Amino acid sequence: MPVTITLAFTPETLLAPSQDAASTDASVLAMESTCAVMIDVLRASSVMTTAGAAGVDRIYTTASVDQALAVAKELRTSVSGQGDGAQGVLLCGERNCERIDGFDHGNSPAEYTSESVSGKQMVMTTSNGTRAIEAVKHCDRLLIASFLNLSSVLQRLADETSILIMCAGTHREISREDVLLGGAIVERLLQSKSASDVVLNDQAMIAHAAWCQAGVSSNAQLADALTHSIGASNLIRLGMAADVRRCAELDSISGVVMRCNESDETCLPVSLDASLDPVSRFKFFS
Amino acid sequence: MPVTITLAFTPETLLAPSQDAASTDASVLAMESTCAVMIDVLRASSVMTTAGAAGVDRIYTTASVDQALAVAKELRTSVSGQGDGAQGVLLCGERNCERIDGFDHGNSPAEYTSESVSGKQMVMTTSNGTRAIEAVKHCDRLLIASFLNLSSVLQRLADETSILIMCAGTHREISREDVLLGGAIVERLLQSKSASDVVLNDQAMIAHAAWCQAGVSSNAQLADALTHSIGASNLIRLGMAADVRRCAELDSISGVVMRCNESDETCLPVSLDASLDPVSRFKFFS
Repeated sequence: MPVTITLAFTPETLLAPSQDAASTDASVLAMESTCAVMIDVLRASSVMTTAGAAGVDRIYTTASVDQALAVAKELRTSVSGQGDGAQGVLLCGERNCERIDGFDHGNSPAEYTSESVSGKQMVMTTSNGTRAIEAVKHCDRLLIASFLNLSSVLQRLADETSILIMCAGTHREISREDVLLGGAIVERLLQSKSASDVVLNDQAMIAHAAWCQAGVSSNAQLADALTHSIGASNLIRLGMAADVRRCAELDSISGVVMRCNESDETCLPVSLDASLDPVSRFKFFS
Repeated sequence: MPVTITLAFTPETLLAPSQDAASTDASVLAMESTCAVMIDVLRASSVMTTAGAAGVDRIYTTASVDQALAVAKELRTSVSGQGDGAQGVLLCGERNCERIDGFDHGNSPAEYTSESVSGKQMVMTTSNGTRAIEAVKHCDRLLIASFLNLSSVLQRLADETSILIMCAGTHREISREDVLLGGAIVERLLQSKSASDVVLNDQAMIAHAAWCQAGVSSNAQLADALTHSIGASNLIRLGMAADVRRCAELDSISGVVMRCNESDETCLPVSLDASLDPVSRFKFFS
């Protein structure tokens, strides 16, 4: 069976084949049988993966700070009913790369240790990652990919026949580090499948070339490649170069953060107030 | 002096650094000292270059068919005053890759021979190229680039210190053939300047990698590379594969189509009715 790999450099560059209603319906329908892969290398998807591997119980993502606060409040009520209190819920995220005032954690992977997150509920809002998650909401399945767990992501994609790789970008700009990981995923998929059976869109071909041309064969080379991007330059300017190196630790984590099914009753609360903006719920699968 | 190369995969992926008014002003200001390069390999920029080399007098581009008709009417009045009559003005362009009903020429380079266009005024409307031209209207200078005249384009860029490479794409989708030419221009600029003096945006880096990875060293390889793109697949489906090969004839033309200055009184008419959509005027410089 042929495998279709569609890659989008940002949510904006993913277009339905045509603007008419019939095509849009067909496009949504096609998305339903699609597995989406969200990429925000610097740093949302690296943070989510690190937190998942460190034992976080659930990750709730929101677009706005207000929604993050509302979700945390609702979760604290639920969790405290179980005797855990406010300690069991962490407010996490950034604006302009910096920790949000009053939040427990910012967006540095180093903050997400077992000591700080194991067994806890994480409510997270970031500038770019959340928009990318929303853009693929119609997809049946959603994986969060980082260089940290590239091989685990590929294992999860082994049986998929329709894959949508959604790069987050940086403030709506195409960001090279996300494109590189997208290209790395395309490269491994091409290796694992018969190339004649794989259909790539133009962006997937371009991302693949970008990754191959980067010629990465060590973590140091990967960190160097990631450094030449708009996402990295913002971090380096703010003194966060260590985060770039951390996000380049290829395959240091086994497991993948995946979106929970809507019917998953083990996510609390099961019915969140979506009046501010949509909330997505994620869990780590080792 | 450092050279800044900004590349946009489509008009939509060119973003001002920020949305606030001060930055937008700064961005327009920066564009004013910038030389823009418009790329629509399949086929608007290849057609314009071919027509220019075949001796067309002026090319007027419009977004809409209605505006093309209005401009042609105005030109015919002017030209007939010079004794040339309606024969001196050609209506050219496509919708969905096909010649527009009632127009003289479609969008195949092969149609633009000396016999058919020499000394004439060309009014042209295409699906994608015109939008890309409009997106860079604030730039001081605008060159039309194709693989046909790559070396001539590079000669014109030799002394520029701020270059904006605008790929047209296909119906707002990123199209690989445009990105490849953009990458080829970046590659030649990097060769001609000290690499440490060149600042690339992420899209320029990605395009550069796509071109280098394509490993093109002959026209046949270039045609093959162009074939794997959304733009080419549309043409091939319509039986126009010969156009793809034609647009891959690297450096077969010496000279560049460039936008005329607003004050250029040799363009007729000097004041066009822009009530429908903007009109740009071009001339071939050998």
